[in-house]
Amino acid sequence: MESQVEHVRHLQCTTCGAVVEESHAALTCPFCASEGILDVIYDYEAIARRVSRDCFAASGENSMWRYVPFLPVDPAWEKPPLRVGWTPLHDARRLARALGARTVFVKDEGVNPTASLKDRASAIAAVRAKAAGRRIVACASTGNAASSLAGCAASMGLRSCIFVPRRAPRGKLMQLLIYGATVVSVDGSYHDAFSLSAAAIEKWGWYNRNAAINPYLVEGKKTVSFEICEQLGWQVPDWVVVSVGDGCTIAGVYKGFYDFFRTGLITRIPRILGVQATGCQPLVEAFRSGERFRPSPENTIADSIAVGVPRNPTKALNAVRRSGGDMIAVPDEEILRAMRLLGSTTGVFSEPAGAASLAGLATALESGTIGREETVVVIATGNGLKDIANAERAAPPPIEVGPSIEDLRQMLEARAQDLLAQGE
Amino acid sequence: MESQVEHVRHLQCTTCGAVVEESHAALTCPFCASEGILDVIYDYEAIARRVSRDCFAASGENSMWRYVPFLPVDPAWEKPPLRVGWTPLHDARRLARALGARTVFVKDEGVNPTASLKDRASAIAAVRAKAAGRRIVACASTGNAASSLAGCAASMGLRSCIFVPRRAPRGKLMQLLIYGATVVSVDGSYHDAFSLSAAAIEKWGWYNRNAAINPYLVEGKKTVSFEICEQLGWQVPDWVVVSVGDGCTIAGVYKGFYDFFRTGLITRIPRILGVQATGCQPLVEAFRSGERFRPSPENTIADSIAVGVPRNPTKALNAVRRSGGDMIAVPDEEILRAMRLLGSTTGVFSEPAGAASLAGLATALESGTIGREETVVVIATGNGLKDIANAERAAPPPIEVGPSIEDLRQMLEARAQDLLAQGE
Repeated sequence: MESQVEHVRHLQCTTCGAVVEESHAALTCPFCASEGILDVIYDYEAIARRVSRDCFAASGENSMWRYVPFLPVDPAWEKPPLRVGWTPLHDARRLARALGARTVFVKDEGVNPTASLKDRASAIAAVRAKAAGRRIVACASTGNAASSLAGCAASMGLRSCIFVPRRAPRGKLMQLLIYGATVVSVDGSYHDAFSLSAAAIEKWGWYNRNAAINPYLVEGKKTVSFEICEQLGWQVPDWVVVSVGDGCTIAGVYKGFYDFFRTGLITRIPRILGVQATGCQPLVEAFRSGERFRPSPENTIADSIAVGVPRNPTKALNAVRRSGGDMIAVPDEEILRAMRLLGSTTGVFSEPAGAASLAGLATALESGTIGREETVVVIATGNGLKDIANAERAAPPPIEVGPSIEDLRQMLEARAQDLLAQGE
Repeated sequence: MESQVEHVRHLQCTTCGAVVEESHAALTCPFCASEGILDVIYDYEAIARRVSRDCFAASGENSMWRYVPFLPVDPAWEKPPLRVGWTPLHDARRLARALGARTVFVKDEGVNPTASLKDRASAIAAVRAKAAGRRIVACASTGNAASSLAGCAASMGLRSCIFVPRRAPRGKLMQLLIYGATVVSVDGSYHDAFSLSAAAIEKWGWYNRNAAINPYLVEGKKTVSFEICEQLGWQVPDWVVVSVGDGCTIAGVYKGFYDFFRTGLITRIPRILGVQATGCQPLVEAFRSGERFRPSPENTIADSIAVGVPRNPTKALNAVRRSGGDMIAVPDEEILRAMRLLGSTTGVFSEPAGAASLAGLATALESGTIGREETVVVIATGNGLKDIANAERAAPPPIEVGPSIEDLRQMLEARAQDLLAQGE
């Protein structure tokens, strides 16, 4: 079968190197099965002839679809009407000052339609499902992957079926259920939910959006890097910092810079700092040891990166190594502190996994891994409204007063004296 | 004192008609005090000479600041770096079909930086506070006004002080606290919190962002209507539907269309349908009776519009009447149903107050108030992630299964048969 997308050459197995034709049917390597995660290989020469630094803005698309020449979708395929991507990049000067760094930018992924970076991946899944004539999309997830799939599917008139373990807190399912997803709560572990989803997808021919299995998801995520290049006026930053769970997002971050590098739009790839929580750092350990990762407990508040058995370790570790980057782990207290620091200096309210990147930057500046004069982009991967319970652990208590102004003055003198310095 | 913004003529009291010079000091009418809500009066002739339908896009601003020629801010004043406004307008075809209407658009305000339309108002407050040399901004609120003020202030390096009644659920304060606001929890009612905020603002010279009191907030909100005009290619819709609490938002919606009408950018003003919850409908009753509103209990899940004593009744009722519009109330069950309908047909997850507009549209279509052939814009005022507890009431339960595919098949046959129709 020929590739359906003109500028895609083929897919290639990241494990055995086998070449697979791009098609609506192919998702994993026929030889390595689910161990054989595929990479989408483009015809960079053809793309390079068609693109220029100015062509993206000229497309008029204020969304990830401005990068269609680099995506595994045909320009004519239907896109979701939601505005996915083209999120703001903030020049965070007060944050930089607080960190003792010269230049820090924050990429705010929390303003995506379902409030996380995962929308970029799910949008690709929904577009390819529709192009393939599928009516139902499915995955196993309790987190941002699921809500983004349900939202993107709803916006395109697709049905979605999401598998979750019975213990999943109902609060996390609300977005899915409101988007009209069929949520299947499996009496068992996350692994049981995943296995049942795989069986059902196979049996009923649904479109598979399981992370890592589907090679096109990373291709959606890479648009975050395209945007960073454009929004910085094509000045490639020295470092990009992103938190790491199953490894798909960091793989996407690298792929974006790689694509632009290969087509001559940029002349170097930034170093990538991958950040995990100390309570769940299988990829940090694998990076350090050079050996295959060992399954880890999942002891962190940053649930979006609490992945003890990462599904995309090869692409993730390649991303860090090929970029000349590094990986570090940060404790939960640092993540909570980073949530407050980010919110109070930039007005960006991030979920713990998003703030983990910032905590990693702070650590890397202290240790000298990242120089204070270097230009850094921190990716805030999701909105803090997704996880109010942990925000509660990060937030200071309010000031309690009676209804008298004298009472208030005393409390402010004790706790927020700077408020009294103006006007009186 | 002369007006500081060239295209602003003056302020005018909506109660007694007194003219007040625009300045950083003037907020309410000197004769009517807090009853004397001011309206910002522009020099429309001067503005009309400067603007055209094309000038906004040409500004390159993908935010509310593309409309600076119509705002009470000097173009040179510092703006918040957050991307406020220029939210997507979705052509919601499946939603329209479900309602039996021809053309329904949804304006998704939930993707604003702090996830509600109120960012448009708070951004103006923060800009004017900074221009006036203030360092501290304040308001009394437990809701979107407070979180938007705290976020916008943080992004501009301003301090914020927010007054809340002791009973305010801590979950609602999280956004504020993470943005670094000083939250003063007052042992008393909302009224006590408001009074203490007023006294503190007066005593310490803080910038006042209390709704209705500050006449510039409505001017920020009106940008939602500017965007609707531009995004519809200058085809004015027949109706705009918006939920109503204290009345400031609907006043802003009207003001936007009025400004564009007065400067010749559009040739008519759409009818405005104001929607309240049946458990708290003082303005619906005042609209019907023609008399002054009577304070109401606040019995609705839609907390953003649960306002028993609306602070901006005159501007709100004027907006509906002058547009030839109407007001209706909808029960909470209809609001919950509308949340599901909106989410599942468009991928927009709205807070109850936002979905109330849609519930109002459904009712107005049934009663014939709005014709099925008319073009309607529904404003979804805030993100559903702000209120997971009520989403929980709106959402259907998940399907519970054991980890066997046969078990799953039986459950799907009973509850989601359409998922089995594909591929087998």
